[in-house]
Amino acid sequence: MIKTPLFLATETLTLQTILNEIADTMNASTERGTVANYIPELAAVDPNQFGISVALPTGEVFNAGCAQQLFSIQSISKVFSLTLALGKIGDAVWNKVGREPSGDPFNSIVQLEHEHGKPRNPFINAGAIAVVDSIMMGHEPKEVLAEILQFVRYIANDNSVAIDEKVALSELATGHRNASLAHFMASFGRIEHDINKLLGAYYHQCSISMSCEQLAKSGLFLVSDGVNRVTGKQIVSSQRARRINSLMLMCGHYDGSGEFAYRVGLPGKSGVGGGILAIAPGKASIAVWSPGLDTIGNSKLGTLALELLVQRTGWSVF
Amino acid sequence: MIKTPLFLATETLTLQTILNEIADTMNASTERGTVANYIPELAAVDPNQFGISVALPTGEVFNAGCAQQLFSIQSISKVFSLTLALGKIGDAVWNKVGREPSGDPFNSIVQLEHEHGKPRNPFINAGAIAVVDSIMMGHEPKEVLAEILQFVRYIANDNSVAIDEKVALSELATGHRNASLAHFMASFGRIEHDINKLLGAYYHQCSISMSCEQLAKSGLFLVSDGVNRVTGKQIVSSQRARRINSLMLMCGHYDGSGEFAYRVGLPGKSGVGGGILAIAPGKASIAVWSPGLDTIGNSKLGTLALELLVQRTGWSVF
Amino acid sequence: MIKTPLFLATETLTLQTILNEIADTMNASTERGTVANYIPELAAVDPNQFGISVALPTGEVFNAGCAQQLFSIQSISKVFSLTLALGKIGDAVWNKVGREPSGDPFNSIVQLEHEHGKPRNPFINAGAIAVVDSIMMGHEPKEVLAEILQFVRYIANDNSVAIDEKVALSELATGHRNASLAHFMASFGRIEHDINKLLGAYYHQCSISMSCEQLAKSGLFLVSDGVNRVTGKQIVSSQRARRINSLMLMCGHYDGSGEFAYRVGLPGKSGVGGGILAIAPGKASIAVWSPGLDTIGNSKLGTLALELLVQRTGWSVF
Amino acid sequence: MIKTPLFLATETLTLQTILNEIADTMNASTERGTVANYIPELAAVDPNQFGISVALPTGEVFNAGCAQQLFSIQSISKVFSLTLALGKIGDAVWNKVGREPSGDPFNSIVQLEHEHGKPRNPFINAGAIAVVDSIMMGHEPKEVLAEILQFVRYIANDNSVAIDEKVALSELATGHRNASLAHFMASFGRIEHDINKLLGAYYHQCSISMSCEQLAKSGLFLVSDGVNRVTGKQIVSSQRARRINSLMLMCGHYDGSGEFAYRVGLPGKSGVGGGILAIAPGKASIAVWSPGLDTIGNSKLGTLALELLVQRTGWSVF
Repeated sequence: MIKTPLFLATETLTLQTILNEIADTMNASTERGTVANYIPELAAVDPNQFGISVALPTGEVFNAGCAQQLFSIQSISKVFSLTLALGKIGDAVWNKVGREPSGDPFNSIVQLEHEHGKPRNPFINAGAIAVVDSIMMGHEPKEVLAEILQFVRYIANDNSVAIDEKVALSELATGHRNASLAHFMASFGRIEHDINKLLGAYYHQCSISMSCEQLAKSGLFLVSDGVNRVTGKQIVSSQRARRINSLMLMCGHYDGSGEFAYRVGLPGKSGVGGGILAIAPGKASIAVWSPGLDTIGNSKLGTLALELLVQRTGWSVF
Repeated sequence: MIKTPLFLATETLTLQTILNEIADTMNASTERGTVANYIPELAAVDPNQFGISVALPTGEVFNAGCAQQLFSIQSISKVFSLTLALGKIGDAVWNKVGREPSGDPFNSIVQLEHEHGKPRNPFINAGAIAVVDSIMMGHEPKEVLAEILQFVRYIANDNSVAIDEKVALSELATGHRNASLAHFMASFGRIEHDINKLLGAYYHQCSISMSCEQLAKSGLFLVSDGVNRVTGKQIVSSQRARRINSLMLMCGHYDGSGEFAYRVGLPGKSGVGGGILAIAPGKASIAVWSPGLDTIGNSKLGTLALELLVQRTGWSVF
Repeated sequence: MIKTPLFLATETLTLQTILNEIADTMNASTERGTVANYIPELAAVDPNQFGISVALPTGEVFNAGCAQQLFSIQSISKVFSLTLALGKIGDAVWNKVGREPSGDPFNSIVQLEHEHGKPRNPFINAGAIAVVDSIMMGHEPKEVLAEILQFVRYIANDNSVAIDEKVALSELATGHRNASLAHFMASFGRIEHDINKLLGAYYHQCSISMSCEQLAKSGLFLVSDGVNRVTGKQIVSSQRARRINSLMLMCGHYDGSGEFAYRVGLPGKSGVGGGILAIAPGKASIAVWSPGLDTIGNSKLGTLALELLVQRTGWSVF
Repeated sequence: MIKTPLFLATETLTLQTILNEIADTMNASTERGTVANYIPELAAVDPNQFGISVALPTGEVFNAGCAQQLFSIQSISKVFSLTLALGKIGDAVWNKVGREPSGDPFNSIVQLEHEHGKPRNPFINAGAIAVVDSIMMGHEPKEVLAEILQFVRYIANDNSVAIDEKVALSELATGHRNASLAHFMASFGRIEHDINKLLGAYYHQCSISMSCEQLAKSGLFLVSDGVNRVTGKQIVSSQRARRINSLMLMCGHYDGSGEFAYRVGLPGKSGVGGGILAIAPGKASIAVWSPGLDTIGNSKLGTLALELLVQRTGWSVF
């Protein structure tokens, strides 16, 4: 294996300067997008916030803006549950979900009908629900959640990570579209658990609260071939880490994945809470957060901040 | 800009060994897929052929198998015409085509109807036809072709690159689907030139013949931020080179782009002639060729060879 | 208003002979289609049964085969709930459902996504669920069912009509697709009641058991401009009766409606229990039943029997 | 066969009065829809025109408004070419086109891709082009046109019916969408003739000019079981006439067929020239014309006039 060198420690002074400049630019921005309004608890979040955190495999972390502010990671959690599912059942995950971009919005059901209830990838809602179904293995939602939460704490190396119960309940109350997706898959015999329990687990997983710094740290295993070099733990194999990155690049921003690849050029996963986790393989794990979304549902300032960061650092994988 | 180092010259002995082993494995394979049968001239090609070529920014080229055998590059030419179009009209190209994966086969028309005749990306057939339309600028097909051919010779640094007229005529005779796509876009006012002339230019572009070695050399500008370091020529800007790579990764293998990213992890563009051009940014430009295709229309052994190469070299962008 | 004369009483001897011949032909048939297998209680029905009943506005009824055998009317009930809904909320029904054929299978969800959750017509499953939602008006399922059942008894002039509870429970247990449709509509704010209660009411409505004779009698109001001439009751206005007939012709056999119109030429509504109610305006109300279905889900012998009947009587509306 | 009596001659005084009232109402209307703008010659027609003609099997004809004004019958011609095709190749027509409503606009291509290039019915554009292909039988467009024109003159019993060459040329110049449909079908091997010749024949067929009176007379064979009782000629069999009527009812108004059936309740075929031919089986053949179209492409006042006529006469088939 021919290795790429890490980002050099001598350059880290520059990095803090870059992040400060980006945070200043973002804080001055007046076009912040729209906060997600279909989950009541999220709709109440103040849009005038921005945070960024960059974690290096060396253990160094660079922050700017409100990088310690907790927010709802929402769909970013799909990366973690996919990783967990791959660990538990291996490539059998791909019997439940595909690996192709969908070309449709995150909650589209058209593709499901055309492909006999099999979701195109694990990052659209239907796919993520199917992934949770694959890790339930007959257990109760609270047991599954305990396992997911423990896993996130483990990879983030931070036992304070928690679920925001109010957000979870807020989602349950408004989740007709996800219930539709789950029942649709079930009608093809693709769901093994009770729909209400499954959705309960899914919504709680999406309601994990993290700060930019926690989130950036949790992505470190994807930077270094599956190993969190700070803790020394091998989370997944090298090949699997690279493949998770490829899925993030191809499918991590729903119908805006092509645009994100074009502008930013890094594997990334967004959530409607306004967070984005981006991985610069061999270099850094980056988390940004700003609650305002673009029309596709990705953080508007978060994407812009990553675009600027990559321009300054040359971290694009391309 | 923080730079990634090039592949080290001292490792090149290893590289030749790797290529030889891959060629041996491919030549021993009995599952070679199916030669494209809808273009008569291509259907006649012997499927028992395999070639691979790796061009480094240092100027070194490593070959194995029939790397000098000419084949029809077909859709790989779309990378070159897109590059040419970006040079001629800049980002106005994106008024004609989008930048998202389509989630549909290469010749699907469904997406066009849903999006008012605008192709999702420049690498599906409709998008590539729209790109050719954008570079015709009122000229006759033969003038446009001369320009495209001159450009390919320029980036390949090889004046012997030519069009296979028999393949071009073979396509013209069977191209109802592409004619349908072109007329469909025209019905939305998106095509500026006569359909027959436009398709004539398109088919001739697709009928460019190249060897693996020529093709690998032609991709060098995408390895090194837009500069062909062997000739010293700046073909496109650094940002544009990276963005072309991102488009290749996201959309270069049609509805199998996710699979290619997952297995190979490099920007790549396939053609139904059985060729694939893959770019390992900062490292190498790679061309493979084997005429048998998988069900989606990408070279079966070509993909497998690239998967092995990346496993051995660690060149995945992820 | 220029009236069409009724079927003449002197011709009724002929009619019994025609029905007997049709029943003989059907009983001798060996190609009976497949009994619906996705509702366990229906899957257990013996496919070797056939019944036909013709009710005239004069009060005469002609039967052949097992015309007194009870069967599950399933989707035929959608005609009755639509009629009831039109009586309760009038043309406001058309805010909830459209009036166009769908061009898709009975349980397709694709159309719903393309048209913002509004079902194309009241006879596809989504549309029928929306119709039930419109007549619930805040009541409990058992109250709504009582109302529907009372209405069916009223138009059939037969108080013995009842719901088969075993079929209703059988549907509840397997109804993921309908749950998906209901939640999907709810996600667009188009459903006013609790999904479980709504589906409970819907499944019980579909589980009404009737014989061919009961069913034929229940259609008499559609034969004579909204009036059941036997009982003298005006069920709906003349215009509304004709419009219900038009909806049955256009949409009553799902994606096989064109075929039914072509072969039979009468307004008709099929159910997966194997029944069909067909209306010859001004002439007769006809019910047929045979459990085996064609690939689209309509009774195979039932359709054939109606085709023969129309050939013999000239009752096609065309 | 049990016969329905004809409209009684003694009621014809009433009929003239009804038509006069309808024409007065239409002429006073200020909401006339929009004249088709994608065929330049049609776009120039004065929208302030209305004509209606009712032809009875007795030979009587009743007119009101500008019933002698020639207009372009456009898609109404599809009824005639279908009738001709059924006469020439019989039910083999149904190998080329289906018999189901499409649920899509008249020029949609989505359905074609989903169903391997086979048009859903003979009245959407793709289906009508396939029908013309089936009657060309290797002949030149002008020979085919001569045959179609001769047939229309024969059924209309009027040798003055002619093609408006200016309209035909106007369509040729703007027909990218139809060219796309034809090439798409050809890509599935479903078209036997040269696309340009085929479209030439198709556009000329659509450019037949007729008056309301001529058009009403031409529909008489569909009123009386395939026989034009005025001329005594049997044009098609009784069964075939009824089946053509069923296709007109199911598919004659594109994605507005359900609405037309609901409001008017007669088999009908519209054209973007603003004409509609409607058949009241056993009663009358009716032609209306007013150039302004609704959003779906059917004559706005023409539909309204037919709705009023049916309310006054009770001619709905339902």
